[in-house]
Amino acid sequence: MLQLYIQQLIEKIGKDKISQNKPVLMQHSKDESIHPAVEPDVVCFPECAGDVAEILKFACANLVPVTPFGAGSGLEGQAIPIQKGIVMNFERMNKIIEFSPEDMRVTVQAGVTRLQLNRLVNEYGLMFSVDPGADAMIGGMVATNASGTTSVRYGAMRDQLLDLEVMLADGTIIRTGSQARKSSSGYHLTGLFTGSEGTLGIITEVTLKLHGIPEYNMMARCTFNSLEDCARAAQTILQAEIPVLRMELIDAVSISMINHHSGEAFPEKHSLFFEFAGSKRAVEEEVALASELMHDLDCENWVAANDPIKMNGIWKARKDLNYAIAHQPETCEIGGDVCVPISRTPELVSFARTRMDQSGLKGAIWGHIGDGNFHTSVMYNPNVVGEFETAEQTSDAIVLKAIEVGGTCTGEHGVGLGKMKFQEVEHGEALEVMKRTKHMYDPKGILNPGKLFID
Amino acid sequence: MLQLYIQQLIEKIGKDKISQNKPVLMQHSKDESIHPAVEPDVVCFPECAGDVAEILKFACANLVPVTPFGAGSGLEGQAIPIQKGIVMNFERMNKIIEFSPEDMRVTVQAGVTRLQLNRLVNEYGLMFSVDPGADAMIGGMVATNASGTTSVRYGAMRDQLLDLEVMLADGTIIRTGSQARKSSSGYHLTGLFTGSEGTLGIITEVTLKLHGIPEYNMMARCTFNSLEDCARAAQTILQAEIPVLRMELIDAVSISMINHHSGEAFPEKHSLFFEFAGSKRAVEEEVALASELMHDLDCENWVAANDPIKMNGIWKARKDLNYAIAHQPETCEIGGDVCVPISRTPELVSFARTRMDQSGLKGAIWGHIGDGNFHTSVMYNPNVVGEFETAEQTSDAIVLKAIEVGGTCTGEHGVGLGKMKFQEVEHGEALEVMKRTKHMYDPKGILNPGKLFID
Ligand SMILES: Cc1cc2nc3c(=O)[nH]c(=O)nc-3n(C[C@H](O)[C@H](O)[C@H](O)COP(=O)(O)OP(=O)(O)OC[C@H]3O[C@@H](n4cnc5c(N)ncnc54)[C@H](O)[C@@H]3O)c2cc1C
Ligand SMILES: Cc1cc2nc3c(=O)[nH]c(=O)nc-3n(C[C@H](O)[C@H](O)[C@H](O)COP(=O)(O)OP(=O)(O)OC[C@H]3O[C@@H](n4cnc5c(N)ncnc54)[C@H](O)[C@@H]3O)c2cc1C
Repeated sequence: MLQLYIQQLIEKIGKDKISQNKPVLMQHSKDESIHPAVEPDVVCFPECAGDVAEILKFACANLVPVTPFGAGSGLEGQAIPIQKGIVMNFERMNKIIEFSPEDMRVTVQAGVTRLQLNRLVNEYGLMFSVDPGADAMIGGMVATNASGTTSVRYGAMRDQLLDLEVMLADGTIIRTGSQARKSSSGYHLTGLFTGSEGTLGIITEVTLKLHGIPEYNMMARCTFNSLEDCARAAQTILQAEIPVLRMELIDAVSISMINHHSGEAFPEKHSLFFEFAGSKRAVEEEVALASELMHDLDCENWVAANDPIKMNGIWKARKDLNYAIAHQPETCEIGGDVCVPISRTPELVSFARTRMDQSGLKGAIWGHIGDGNFHTSVMYNPNVVGEFETAEQTSDAIVLKAIEVGGTCTGEHGVGLGKMKFQEVEHGEALEVMKRTKHMYDPKGILNPGKLFID
Repeated sequence: MLQLYIQQLIEKIGKDKISQNKPVLMQHSKDESIHPAVEPDVVCFPECAGDVAEILKFACANLVPVTPFGAGSGLEGQAIPIQKGIVMNFERMNKIIEFSPEDMRVTVQAGVTRLQLNRLVNEYGLMFSVDPGADAMIGGMVATNASGTTSVRYGAMRDQLLDLEVMLADGTIIRTGSQARKSSSGYHLTGLFTGSEGTLGIITEVTLKLHGIPEYNMMARCTFNSLEDCARAAQTILQAEIPVLRMELIDAVSISMINHHSGEAFPEKHSLFFEFAGSKRAVEEEVALASELMHDLDCENWVAANDPIKMNGIWKARKDLNYAIAHQPETCEIGGDVCVPISRTPELVSFARTRMDQSGLKGAIWGHIGDGNFHTSVMYNPNVVGEFETAEQTSDAIVLKAIEVGGTCTGEHGVGLGKMKFQEVEHGEALEVMKRTKHMYDPKGILNPGKLFID
């Protein structure tokens, strides 16, 4: 039975666009999350929208699940083919379709990666602004509404989109927007597909806004005695409307983990990291003002720099963080990604810290504090009975608190498998509407089934 | 029959929330467009979400059309109850629900108007940025995805929204977002309802982002010999990343109409109008740079000012424009609202000007050139046989050209009745998806029926 459907699929799209090699199946069985791997039956490598349409028509007729797969850097299990079937990998759809520097606009295929795109447009003094750390694919970033360190200034993925080419479950191709900067024509389908995690349609092309590369950068760092003070300091920067390019928080526990892991000696206190960018004069003014505001709030260890080596030193702690967490011995982690109104961040980071301390487990807090978005990592030893449960309870309590104060369970990573359980409490009656939306777009339930909500 | 259903409705929500007075019916039979007036059977004035739910449940059970009505300032006939039934006026739902200056965020009922909101938040140094000229209601502005003169800097209505409370056709209340600045949780229903013109649900509450009021403003004006030069000059400003607060185009024909109407003596040439805002030093630098760039492009009549009286003088032409057009004797107009990629604006404004000139009719061109969004007004005498047809052909040709170059038929006014005929050519296969979306949300077709597309 299994071999038969794959045989038919090969006849449709050709042998060289399909793989059943064990290493390929394994590679497409997981993302960067803790969710268990599930191998698909087969991995397809479409080379154009036509291939995608063929695969979808076939899958629809034969009721085979199709899970789109970007760079596999997701943190919530979104790309894991939990019902097996076909995984669709976009690495061969990696062409820049149209680049208009005058319009600061580019159209790319879904498989183009963030760094690949920047290599091209940077030469024209332009940049694609969303930076989630990993070298994700543009299709994957649209599908999760990714954001990152620079979103405090430029917004999330959603804010960069002009147009999508989307393939519906039945193989129909639609375009959701236009090439103009704004529009009030028709329903805003671009918004709907963004963040839909491959459950409503397959994104084949994306038209993005670009931004000019600022001419001058400076970085700075400082520490505070409490996490609340850090969060309040970040709020002060926003209220002064200093257009920071980046503003990140790392708590003292995380800094000590970094020191331990990288042999550094960063002050083991709750820290804020800044990047400023613009004209030289504006940046220098902003840094001066930020320094003044931070010192008024009794910051310590303020350092600012603009030469590349020193700047690198300042941000090294932030850069080493993921690595330090990933390399804790005998440790798994439950990751959090809450986002709350700015005014509630002091309360929330402090709540998270207290809960982690009470749990007796190691926990780290860091994130895009300028958006009200911060990550929590509650670490546990999978070999110690009860630790997982404690970690889960701790992490859940933080998410529920965030939702209670008007926030969301996920500021940027998305729902996937990991945040499904919070959808009802966060969205209430709207969840029913989302389910109906899913049924409308994908009546046979073949697109990334089993994600976002239990259908 | 008619009286019977109204009798029942009165029993549901009470007599004082309903009117069948002739002047009230007339007032709700039209908006600011040229589309023919149609009186509703009855106008309801809900005072809370509960009233809206009652009306909707009643309408749903009795298959009575319901058309939401904001300030009635729409330009495409959106709020005209073309299938009669109930018009729902929001003027009594005009409360500020929650205002959080620290979060630069406010939640309002749908009937709060733009100026009412700004009166409150301005006192805290904050502003609601979208300015469509008219004192529209926030609900109406969400429903049309309004934008305006400041959108070049702050974006359209869509970019200001964090959360909506929406009442579905069957009376279910949902919330579509959260109070956090960003989220990747669940389908982005906020995006879908924005710009849906009352056809998918009734918006009862809106949570908006606010912006700080810039401390210093300057205005400037200059002229060019051709419309293409104006458009290119605007593009130059954008490429230099001068963060103009406003950047508007008015063509020579319109200026001469303004002079004639207001007794002014503005240079009768194609003109650009600028407003700059920020810190004093930044603004002065921006104005200096803009002046240099404009003179490099051979602008004439450059004036810049920062004292209120002179600033007012500079913008007077822009402000008098609607009035001047509206008061052309024996004249009706067909309004255009295309939006195209910035690099195509020189071609498009020139195409529009040529077509108007060829038509033998009077025509004006002006608009938010920094967004690639400009308005056309083709004027005709309704008493002269054939003039309407010529005007329509001219206006249609401009819209089709805009769509051809990747633009949209409406950058900000919306579709309503006026832009329905362009939906298929603009959206192609996506139009079918939009129709299915409409059926899903409003299976009985009671919400603002007959708008956006022929169902
Ligand atoms: C170290 C590290 C740091 C990170 N930091 C951030 C951060 O700061 N901000 C942030 O937002 N994320 C962050 N992430 C998470 C991840 O990078 C993002 O979620 C990213 O957007 C995923 O893109 P991807 O190409 O890897 O997609 P995948 O993980 O492969 O897939 C993600 C989802 O998108 C769907 N999908 C992929 N391609 C398509 C397509 N063409 N059409 C339809 N659906 C598709 C998949 O089915 C899946 O549901 C981080 C990850 C790592 C490992
Ligand atoms: C002189 C002038 C200049 C203008 N300039 C601009 C401009 O620069 N930019 C711009 O965008 N527009 C402009 N407009 C058009 C108009 O102001 C906008 O379209 C505005 O958003 C309409 O808001 P309103 O409250 O008047 O809505 P209405 O015209 O009353 O209704 C518009 C639509 O919204 C729906 N609606 C209203 N309230 C709700 C609700 N609570 N729930 C669901 N649906 C609802 C109605 O059913 C209708 O479909 C201008 C109009 C005039 C007269």
